[in-house]
Amino acid sequence: MSERVVLAYSGGLDTTVAVRWLKQTQDLDVIALLVDVGQGGDTELLRKRAMDAGALDAQVIDAREEYANEYVTKALAANALYQDRYPLVSALSRPLICKHLAEAAHHYNARYVAHGCTGKGNDQVRFEVSLAALSPDLVVLAPCRGWGMTREEAMGYAMQHNLPISMTPASPYSIDENLWGRAIECGVLEDPFIEPPDDIWERTSDPSSAPSEPAYLEIEFRRGLPVALDGEALPFSQLVERVEKLAGSYGYGRIDMIEDRVVGIKSREVYEAPGALALIEAHAELEHLTLERDLLRTKRELERTYANLAYEGLWFSPLREALDAFIQSTEQYVNGTVRVKIESGSVRVVGRRSAASLYEMSLATYDRDDAFDHKAAEGFVKLWGLPLKTWARARRADAASPPGAGSWEGVSEK
Amino acid sequence: MSERVVLAYSGGLDTTVAVRWLKQTQDLDVIALLVDVGQGGDTELLRKRAMDAGALDAQVIDAREEYANEYVTKALAANALYQDRYPLVSALSRPLICKHLAEAAHHYNARYVAHGCTGKGNDQVRFEVSLAALSPDLVVLAPCRGWGMTREEAMGYAMQHNLPISMTPASPYSIDENLWGRAIECGVLEDPFIEPPDDIWERTSDPSSAPSEPAYLEIEFRRGLPVALDGEALPFSQLVERVEKLAGSYGYGRIDMIEDRVVGIKSREVYEAPGALALIEAHAELEHLTLERDLLRTKRELERTYANLAYEGLWFSPLREALDAFIQSTEQYVNGTVRVKIESGSVRVVGRRSAASLYEMSLATYDRDDAFDHKAAEGFVKLWGLPLKTWARARRADAASPPGAGSWEGVSEK
Amino acid sequence: MSERVVLAYSGGLDTTVAVRWLKQTQDLDVIALLVDVGQGGDTELLRKRAMDAGALDAQVIDAREEYANEYVTKALAANALYQDRYPLVSALSRPLICKHLAEAAHHYNARYVAHGCTGKGNDQVRFEVSLAALSPDLVVLAPCRGWGMTREEAMGYAMQHNLPISMTPASPYSIDENLWGRAIECGVLEDPFIEPPDDIWERTSDPSSAPSEPAYLEIEFRRGLPVALDGEALPFSQLVERVEKLAGSYGYGRIDMIEDRVVGIKSREVYEAPGALALIEAHAELEHLTLERDLLRTKRELERTYANLAYEGLWFSPLREALDAFIQSTEQYVNGTVRVKIESGSVRVVGRRSAASLYEMSLATYDRDDAFDHKAAEGFVKLWGLPLKTWARARRADAASPPGAGSWEGVSEK
Amino acid sequence: MSERVVLAYSGGLDTTVAVRWLKQTQDLDVIALLVDVGQGGDTELLRKRAMDAGALDAQVIDAREEYANEYVTKALAANALYQDRYPLVSALSRPLICKHLAEAAHHYNARYVAHGCTGKGNDQVRFEVSLAALSPDLVVLAPCRGWGMTREEAMGYAMQHNLPISMTPASPYSIDENLWGRAIECGVLEDPFIEPPDDIWERTSDPSSAPSEPAYLEIEFRRGLPVALDGEALPFSQLVERVEKLAGSYGYGRIDMIEDRVVGIKSREVYEAPGALALIEAHAELEHLTLERDLLRTKRELERTYANLAYEGLWFSPLREALDAFIQSTEQYVNGTVRVKIESGSVRVVGRRSAASLYEMSLATYDRDDAFDHKAAEGFVKLWGLPLKTWARARRADAASPPGAGSWEGVSEK
Repeated sequence: MSERVVLAYSGGLDTTVAVRWLKQTQDLDVIALLVDVGQGGDTELLRKRAMDAGALDAQVIDAREEYANEYVTKALAANALYQDRYPLVSALSRPLICKHLAEAAHHYNARYVAHGCTGKGNDQVRFEVSLAALSPDLVVLAPCRGWGMTREEAMGYAMQHNLPISMTPASPYSIDENLWGRAIECGVLEDPFIEPPDDIWERTSDPSSAPSEPAYLEIEFRRGLPVALDGEALPFSQLVERVEKLAGSYGYGRIDMIEDRVVGIKSREVYEAPGALALIEAHAELEHLTLERDLLRTKRELERTYANLAYEGLWFSPLREALDAFIQSTEQYVNGTVRVKIESGSVRVVGRRSAASLYEMSLATYDRDDAFDHKAAEGFVKLWGLPLKTWARARRADAASPPGAGSWEGVSEK
Repeated sequence: MSERVVLAYSGGLDTTVAVRWLKQTQDLDVIALLVDVGQGGDTELLRKRAMDAGALDAQVIDAREEYANEYVTKALAANALYQDRYPLVSALSRPLICKHLAEAAHHYNARYVAHGCTGKGNDQVRFEVSLAALSPDLVVLAPCRGWGMTREEAMGYAMQHNLPISMTPASPYSIDENLWGRAIECGVLEDPFIEPPDDIWERTSDPSSAPSEPAYLEIEFRRGLPVALDGEALPFSQLVERVEKLAGSYGYGRIDMIEDRVVGIKSREVYEAPGALALIEAHAELEHLTLERDLLRTKRELERTYANLAYEGLWFSPLREALDAFIQSTEQYVNGTVRVKIESGSVRVVGRRSAASLYEMSLATYDRDDAFDHKAAEGFVKLWGLPLKTWARARRADAASPPGAGSWEGVSEK
Repeated sequence: MSERVVLAYSGGLDTTVAVRWLKQTQDLDVIALLVDVGQGGDTELLRKRAMDAGALDAQVIDAREEYANEYVTKALAANALYQDRYPLVSALSRPLICKHLAEAAHHYNARYVAHGCTGKGNDQVRFEVSLAALSPDLVVLAPCRGWGMTREEAMGYAMQHNLPISMTPASPYSIDENLWGRAIECGVLEDPFIEPPDDIWERTSDPSSAPSEPAYLEIEFRRGLPVALDGEALPFSQLVERVEKLAGSYGYGRIDMIEDRVVGIKSREVYEAPGALALIEAHAELEHLTLERDLLRTKRELERTYANLAYEGLWFSPLREALDAFIQSTEQYVNGTVRVKIESGSVRVVGRRSAASLYEMSLATYDRDDAFDHKAAEGFVKLWGLPLKTWARARRADAASPPGAGSWEGVSEK
Repeated sequence: MSERVVLAYSGGLDTTVAVRWLKQTQDLDVIALLVDVGQGGDTELLRKRAMDAGALDAQVIDAREEYANEYVTKALAANALYQDRYPLVSALSRPLICKHLAEAAHHYNARYVAHGCTGKGNDQVRFEVSLAALSPDLVVLAPCRGWGMTREEAMGYAMQHNLPISMTPASPYSIDENLWGRAIECGVLEDPFIEPPDDIWERTSDPSSAPSEPAYLEIEFRRGLPVALDGEALPFSQLVERVEKLAGSYGYGRIDMIEDRVVGIKSREVYEAPGALALIEAHAELEHLTLERDLLRTKRELERTYANLAYEGLWFSPLREALDAFIQSTEQYVNGTVRVKIESGSVRVVGRRSAASLYEMSLATYDRDDAFDHKAAEGFVKLWGLPLKTWARARRADAASPPGAGSWEGVSEK
């Protein structure tokens, strides 16, 4: 009996070739596992494709709610944006796929798991590190990294072995998508001075063709998570989709950036994520209203750490757990409603309120109801500036001392 | 002979009242100093107003180029955004005004300087701390903080003393502006759930009324500073103005936020800064192309420190000097051209190139010219994930040890 | 009937004078509250002294265990050292005292609370901010800051009012102490170039007079807290005392530093804290063994934040709560035994072991049992250095481009 | 004609075997380069050994002063301690060796350079990344990582090829040392619970056998660097040696730690570095006296970044250059004299003074010369605590609202 391998199956060329290749060249029985995180497509069709390619078994896991509730919510609470821009669309889904791979490997009694990533992307890192953390004894195979086939050669292999791949000329782009957004790579996008062509966008309209009337949306948050739109309670995943549709229709949510990959290279990446960006914008602003200043400052620093670790494949790490504990503590205060205005090309917060608000009009107003103690400010400013004043005096005293006795340039002690 | 005081004069109600009040109640000879940082207005008219109010002398300092070249350039190199949003419009100009106050105090042999800030804002901090750092022996007066007049009482004082203030009903808003943007406060804006009314905007059009055709702009940077637009070399201040006009006409650049003031309160602040935001966006993206990953990461952290210190009145600090040294070192690499697309409500980078680019297509491409060593990735991933794998093994081993033997009581994995 | 004030009573000159002064000049009924955090002294004697001075009531709260278990444990888990040196001896006890002040104020139906701090220390900040956070409606009085008496004048006041203060010439030093250490201030210590005289030390011997034989101690930790010494389980407070006695007898634990106070001045501070320092040393080293690298790195950064906030009076803050949540998550792994060697003047970890150890000899050894994959290193190093290699190439390419063509004007390598 | 390789030659077994092995198996002409960074030994003897082993040429570079002045000084200014403990003894010397390797490769027209590191240590990373940054076109060989010989096999190879290695039973330890300290690895030290045996120490005496009389040393710093001892001006390298000898003779300077290597494993490391630790202690304390609070705080954070990058082989990085620019800016203030007391097992600062001191006795004293404005403190504390007070009020208000209207647990906006 052959050993078994559970393959993370996407239904595309590479993983379909991998099904056959793993069997043919490595003598492994392949279980194809397609984890549905909202990427769309006819999953049953893809499942059959894996069987036709020679899989011993093929399964589809509907992980859409799990993805929304266990991964995306955490990223939103962390306002996670890698390099301040990328909402971690693919980076978030990989650990979840790995969790199901590890479980399936256990279920099928497989010693191997496999993914279809190449050697220069981030996803290989996310797959292999997540699997090592979840199930350190599994052996991970990366056939597409190892075999060294170009895309043309993979096509040739598929034809030669009569694999069920549609032979229509493929899109020049490589796409990955799920509830939280959509990533577009390859082709002309690899020239970082060329504007992404219009035909790559699916979730965002052209800003110039946006509705001429602005739209308003009131997003209600509880403990850091959006729970209702304009007063209507919605499950998280539906709420994200609705915000995405609306914001995207106004041409909001396109990202075009140079990004530092884990493997040490810079790449040009293009995303569209109108829902993710709009919700992060609203959530972050509600934190401005409800989080104490120092807490906000430290959280903002840790958010970068969070985005980095998620991007770099370290989701199943004790650091992520500890950061989640920190964030969970902060989010107890993040309750309230944010009003956003959606116009062509922009989503902007124009109102926010909360029972937990730390904004006190009686303190902030310049009106006659002013409750702020103006006299206290005098003392405050005095001590706030005392270190600089002392420093300035020391510099001055030092400059005034006779040459040789020590000037600031080459100062000596008394 | 009376002692002298140099007053930071704006020409508004408060500082005009202060001219008379300082003379009348404190028996001080007032030198009114109006520092022009690009706030607009008829400075000669304002100068005369100060004289009419009873100043011993009144001077206008044209500091527009100094402001652009010594303050705004530094803030742009630092991508300085307080709380990730506010480009420090007022915060940047205060230290410059103080520099001129201190110089004038020296020139006029004055022991006192004065400002017109109240007790709950940030500006009092910026004035007093900057002056303490520049000239620790000067005594700073804050008449408006001390006298406790409401706006109505100040009006009354002006009428009673026949001060040359226009008595037309004033705007309900308090405005501060200069080359880098415009701040609007007070009135209905103090309710953070109410959208800012349309009539407050001057430098930004409504996104809905933007030109229907997008515009493109190629911004050339040298050593971190923009030097040319679409190939035309421009002085920095003119370049900023031109970018602001264009971006503002598309409805880009409005900011509406809850902000943490130095004095410990939250306030709702509204700004428009289309030029600042567009240039920071372009500059930051060029850094993505030209700065090495770790350098970029550390710089991004320090940028927050920079924005905080500028906001908090600590411009003339040794920390700012040291940060500038760091940034100056980084900016030697930030050369190249950024292409931005300006559409209704948005400014987005769509292209970037540089002779100093760290993007290498031969490494990044998924094409057949791929020069990346895919085999190296295998080893890299293995060691990259080794700490997590080790941690996972330890956790597992520990969970397997008999009760009492293990030290991880109750830490078993679910 | 007079209003009531609960005074944080220490039994010293200042707070004893304050009892009478508050009654006499402010017409307040004084409840003196002495919170015992392990500072020693005859608390019943001190209680009577407050009554004799004119208090309406006087209470002693034994908060030693609460202090050890709710405050010191948290500081140890955070390895909290302000400016990398000071284990927060006084800073930790103030919030606890405030908690009891607020509770007593509630119990006695008092509108006021009072402390005996002057205006230039940190303790006034800790008292007032803690009380504001715990009970924002209480009014805090600071009689000693307000009355402006020198020490001599306070003595005079005490004599004049026949207050029960011993009139023997007082120590020139100001002492504060508790379970976690001892702080010595004032007198000759205010000259930062003069060595602290021998007579100030109480908890540490002179290193030169230490026992000639080293001692060893095995400290067992569970979830980040020490639970046993040399196999003997001990309550936390007793364990701290025992470690302190032993380490102190070897001359370990003296601290002499320039410290930045909250109020903006530098002061010279002298402490002795042999127990705190030895336990932090052991605890931190056990974290080196049991915490994953990235987790350790982030924790070390947050430890500074933790020490800063505790020092700066912000104990009862949402930031402290969130940091504690982070730390609690990390400490689940900090189990094991640390062996320390105690010699004259030094406490040094010489052994550590844990069921949760992340040290794997089979990976670390250079011996023949080596399980490390040396080939993986080759790929790892290649990608680890790729960003620098790319940067070096770009710099070189740019330097080679003809003048005018390149954007790196004057950036050529030397 | 064979291609040439420049080998970093230490004179030990591995690199001597490598000379022959590179020639024999790779058909390369070997130039052996021994860079003297103060590791001691008879360099001429070692040079001949390389020739005898078959090198085409062998050179000794005396880089001791360059190491002291270009590397160690920077590390001291940065107070660089990896994981707060290790003063980077080996990590600092590797980049310098690489600089000479690259220069020699240029001189000898060699396409290859080689080092003798194995695959699990940090040094391979430092060599290969430094060389990639300095000379990206050089090909780096790592024969000892590739050949897979155990120590016994290497000995066999040496005997078989009659290589000039002394065949006396070698020390069980692996040593690396230079001006800044000494590292001891392997053997029994690989068990992290076993105390390092007495015979490994060379630069530190046993604390118990230290002189009974303490010693004092006044160290004068200029611009962050020590320039004189007890008034005697000394070149930096001599000064370091003298401090090391004195501190080491008192048993100070032993380090025993679990350390996280770049390659993802934890190792147990033992160092002795009395000079480095004593000078860092003194230098850091002088910074407490002369650096403004916020500057000190940011510098301390960056120091960790600095130590990390040096440890991780990233010395020749733009980040290191930018950090050095920051540090250079700070060190202009670090002038003055530090008095340290050296007792058995400890080096402790007991005095510090500076013409640039920011300690002002008139502000710090509790004496009658007190110049501090106690009234200002009242206002300061009020605003300092205002965010917490506001937060406490909001929490309380929220808790007081009727159930359903929103409690803190599950709060909803008004």
